[in-house]
Amino acid sequence: MDATRLDELQRAEALAGLPGWAPVPGRDAIGKVFRFADFNAAFGWMSRVALMAERLDHHPEWRNVYNRVEVVLTTHDAGGVTGRDIVLARFMDAAAG
Amino acid sequence: MDATRLDELQRAEALAGLPGWAPVPGRDAIGKVFRFADFNAAFGWMSRVALMAERLDHHPEWRNVYNRVEVVLTTHDAGGVTGRDIVLARFMDAAAG
Repeated sequence: MDATRLDELQRAEALAGLPGWAPVPGRDAIGKVFRFADFNAAFGWMSRVALMAERLDHHPEWRNVYNRVEVVLTTHDAGGVTGRDIVLARFMDAAAG
Repeated sequence: MDATRLDELQRAEALAGLPGWAPVPGRDAIGKVFRFADFNAAFGWMSRVALMAERLDHHPEWRNVYNRVEVVLTTHDAGGVTGRDIVLARFMDAAAG
Protein backbone atom coordinates (compact mmCIF):
# COMPACT_ATOMS: atom_id res chain seq x y z
CA MET A 1 0.00 0.00 0.00
CA ASP A 2 1.24 3.46 -0.73
CA ALA A 3 2.08 6.41 1.45
CA THR A 4 -0.82 8.68 0.48
CA ARG A 5 -2.64 10.03 3.49
CA LEU A 6 -5.96 8.24 4.08
CA ASP A 7 -9.05 10.42 4.30
CA GLU A 8 -11.44 10.04 7.23
CA LEU A 9 -13.61 7.40 5.55
CA GLN A 10 -10.65 5.31 4.38
CA ARG A 11 -9.13 5.46 7.84
CA ALA A 12 -12.42 4.43 9.48
CA GLU A 13 -12.73 1.50 7.06
CA ALA A 14 -9.19 0.37 7.80
CA LEU A 15 -9.68 0.69 11.57
CA ALA A 16 -12.86 -1.41 11.37
CA GLY A 17 -10.64 -4.32 10.38
CA LEU A 18 -8.07 -3.69 13.11
CA PRO A 19 -9.46 -4.61 16.54
CA GLY A 20 -8.02 -2.59 19.40
CA TRP A 21 -6.63 0.15 17.17
CA ALA A 22 -8.06 3.63 17.59
CA PRO A 23 -7.33 7.18 16.46
CA VAL A 24 -4.84 8.97 18.73
CA PRO A 25 -6.47 12.09 20.25
CA GLY A 26 -5.03 15.30 18.84
CA ARG A 27 -2.97 13.61 16.13
CA ASP A 28 -3.52 12.09 12.70
CA ALA A 29 -2.29 8.74 13.96
CA ILE A 30 -3.56 5.38 15.16
CA GLY A 31 -2.58 3.60 18.34
CA LYS A 32 -2.94 0.40 20.29
CA VAL A 33 -1.70 -1.01 23.58
CA PHE A 34 -0.34 -4.56 23.40
CA ARG A 35 0.04 -6.69 26.52
CA PHE A 36 2.15 -9.82 26.75
CA ALA A 37 2.94 -12.45 29.36
CA ASP A 38 6.23 -10.84 30.37
CA PHE A 39 9.18 -8.79 29.08
CA ASN A 40 10.54 -11.74 27.13
CA ALA A 41 7.31 -12.00 25.13
CA ALA A 42 6.97 -8.24 24.72
CA PHE A 43 10.52 -7.70 23.48
CA GLY A 44 10.40 -10.82 21.31
CA TRP A 45 7.38 -9.33 19.58
CA MET A 46 9.10 -5.95 19.29
CA SER A 47 12.05 -7.66 17.61
CA ARG A 48 9.81 -9.24 14.98
CA VAL A 49 8.11 -5.89 14.40
CA ALA A 50 11.51 -4.14 14.17
CA LEU A 51 12.62 -6.50 11.39
CA MET A 52 9.41 -5.84 9.47
CA ALA A 53 9.73 -2.09 10.09
CA GLU A 54 13.17 -2.17 8.47
CA ARG A 55 11.88 -4.18 5.54
CA LEU A 56 9.04 -1.68 5.04
CA ASP A 57 11.30 1.28 5.88
CA HIS A 58 8.44 2.40 8.10
CA HIS A 59 8.89 2.63 11.84
CA PRO A 60 6.58 2.81 14.84
CA GLU A 61 6.60 5.17 17.78
CA TRP A 62 6.47 2.84 20.74
CA ARG A 63 6.87 2.74 24.50
CA ASN A 64 7.60 -0.41 26.45
CA VAL A 65 7.22 -1.00 30.17
CA TYR A 66 7.83 -4.65 31.07
CA ASN A 67 5.04 -6.67 29.41
CA ARG A 68 3.25 -3.72 27.84
CA VAL A 69 3.91 -1.91 24.55
CA GLU A 70 2.05 1.26 23.56
CA VAL A 71 2.25 1.82 19.82
CA VAL A 72 1.50 4.92 17.73
CA LEU A 73 1.60 4.72 13.95
CA THR A 74 1.64 7.63 11.55
CA THR A 75 3.51 8.48 8.37
CA HIS A 76 5.56 11.55 9.15
CA ASP A 77 6.26 12.31 5.47
CA ALA A 78 2.54 12.28 4.65
CA GLY A 79 1.44 14.11 7.79
CA GLY A 80 -1.01 11.41 8.76
CA VAL A 81 -2.13 7.79 8.55
CA THR A 82 -1.37 6.00 5.27
CA GLY A 83 -1.58 2.50 3.89
CA ARG A 84 1.91 1.86 5.23
CA ASP A 85 0.60 2.28 8.78
CA ILE A 86 -2.21 -0.15 8.06
CA VAL A 87 0.25 -2.73 6.72
CA LEU A 88 2.44 -2.41 9.82
CA ALA A 89 -0.60 -2.52 12.13
CA ARG A 90 -1.78 -5.76 10.52
CA PHE A 91 1.65 -7.29 10.90
CA MET A 92 1.78 -6.26 14.58
CA ASP A 93 -1.59 -7.91 15.23
CA ALA A 94 -0.58 -11.07 13.38
CA ALA A 95 2.75 -11.28 15.23
CA ALA A 96 1.00 -10.77 18.57
CA GLY A 97 -1.11 -13.84 17.80
CA MET B 1 24.32 -3.79 43.72
CA ASP B 2 21.23 -4.32 45.73
CA ALA B 3 17.70 -3.05 45.40
CA THR B 4 17.66 -0.72 48.41
CA ARG B 5 16.42 2.74 47.52
CA LEU B 6 19.29 5.26 47.25
CA ASP B 7 19.01 8.38 49.37
CA GLU B 8 19.46 11.81 47.81
CA LEU B 9 23.21 11.94 48.39
CA GLN B 10 23.83 8.42 47.08
CA ARG B 11 21.76 9.16 44.00
CA ALA B 12 23.62 12.42 43.34
CA GLU B 13 26.95 10.59 43.67
CA ALA B 14 25.85 7.91 41.25
CA LEU B 15 24.52 10.47 38.74
CA ALA B 16 27.83 12.36 38.87
CA GLY B 17 29.41 9.31 37.21
CA LEU B 18 26.68 8.95 34.59
CA PRO B 19 26.90 11.72 31.98
CA GLY B 20 23.57 12.66 30.43
CA TRP B 21 21.48 10.99 33.13
CA ALA B 22 19.26 13.22 35.24
CA PRO B 23 16.48 12.91 37.80
CA VAL B 24 13.03 12.64 36.19
CA PRO B 25 10.82 15.55 37.35
CA GLY B 26 8.05 14.42 39.68
CA ARG B 27 9.34 10.86 40.05
CA ASP B 28 12.01 9.04 42.01
CA ALA B 29 13.62 7.92 38.76
CA ILE B 30 16.51 8.75 36.44
CA GLY B 31 16.31 9.28 32.71
CA LYS B 32 18.37 9.84 29.60
CA VAL B 33 17.72 10.33 25.91
CA PHE B 34 19.94 8.27 23.60
CA ARG B 35 20.35 9.16 19.93
CA PHE B 36 21.73 6.82 17.29
CA ALA B 37 22.50 6.97 13.58
CA ASP B 38 19.25 5.30 12.56
CA PHE B 39 16.63 2.77 13.62
CA ASN B 40 18.99 -0.13 12.98
CA ALA B 41 21.49 1.27 15.48
CA ALA B 42 18.80 2.25 17.99
CA PHE B 43 17.06 -1.11 17.99
CA GLY B 44 20.35 -3.00 17.96
CA TRP B 45 21.26 -1.18 21.15
CA MET B 46 17.82 -1.86 22.62
CA SER B 47 18.33 -5.56 21.91
CA ARG B 48 21.61 -5.64 23.82
CA VAL B 49 19.99 -3.76 26.70
CA ALA B 50 17.00 -6.13 26.64
CA LEU B 51 19.29 -9.15 27.06
CA MET B 52 21.03 -7.49 30.01
CA ALA B 53 17.67 -6.47 31.49
CA GLU B 54 16.60 -10.12 31.47
CA ARG B 55 19.88 -11.19 33.03
CA LEU B 56 19.47 -8.61 35.79
CA ASP B 57 15.70 -9.20 35.97
CA HIS B 58 15.44 -5.42 35.93
CA HIS B 59 13.72 -3.66 33.06
CA PRO B 60 13.67 -0.12 31.71
CA GLU B 61 10.75 2.08 30.77
CA TRP B 62 11.62 3.24 27.28
CA ARG B 63 10.19 4.96 24.26
CA ASN B 64 11.66 4.67 20.79
CA VAL B 65 11.00 6.87 17.78
CA TYR B 66 13.29 5.96 14.87
CA ASN B 67 16.87 6.77 16.01
CA ARG B 68 15.94 8.07 19.45
CA VAL B 69 15.33 6.19 22.70
CA GLU B 70 14.08 7.91 25.85
CA VAL B 71 14.84 5.82 28.93
CA VAL B 72 13.48 6.03 32.47
CA LEU B 73 14.92 3.82 35.19
CA THR B 74 13.42 3.20 38.59
CA THR B 75 12.94 0.17 40.80
CA HIS B 76 9.21 -0.27 41.20
CA ASP B 77 9.55 -2.69 44.15
CA ALA B 78 11.69 -0.19 46.06
CA GLY B 79 9.67 2.89 45.08
CA GLY B 80 12.70 4.69 43.70
CA VAL B 81 16.20 4.56 42.27
CA THR B 82 18.40 1.71 43.49
CA GLY B 83 21.78 0.24 42.70
CA ARG B 84 20.09 -1.95 40.10
CA ASP B 85 19.16 1.16 38.11
CA ILE B 86 22.73 2.38 38.30
CA VAL B 87 24.05 -0.96 37.02
CA LEU B 88 21.63 -0.90 34.09
CA ALA B 89 22.38 2.77 33.33
CA ARG B 90 26.11 2.00 33.20
CA PHE B 91 25.50 -0.89 30.85
CA MET B 92 23.34 1.29 28.60
CA ASP B 93 26.08 3.90 28.39
CA ALA B 94 28.75 1.28 27.67
CA ALA B 95 26.63 -0.38 25.00
CA ALA B 96 25.93 2.99 23.36
CA GLY B 97 29.68 3.43 23.05
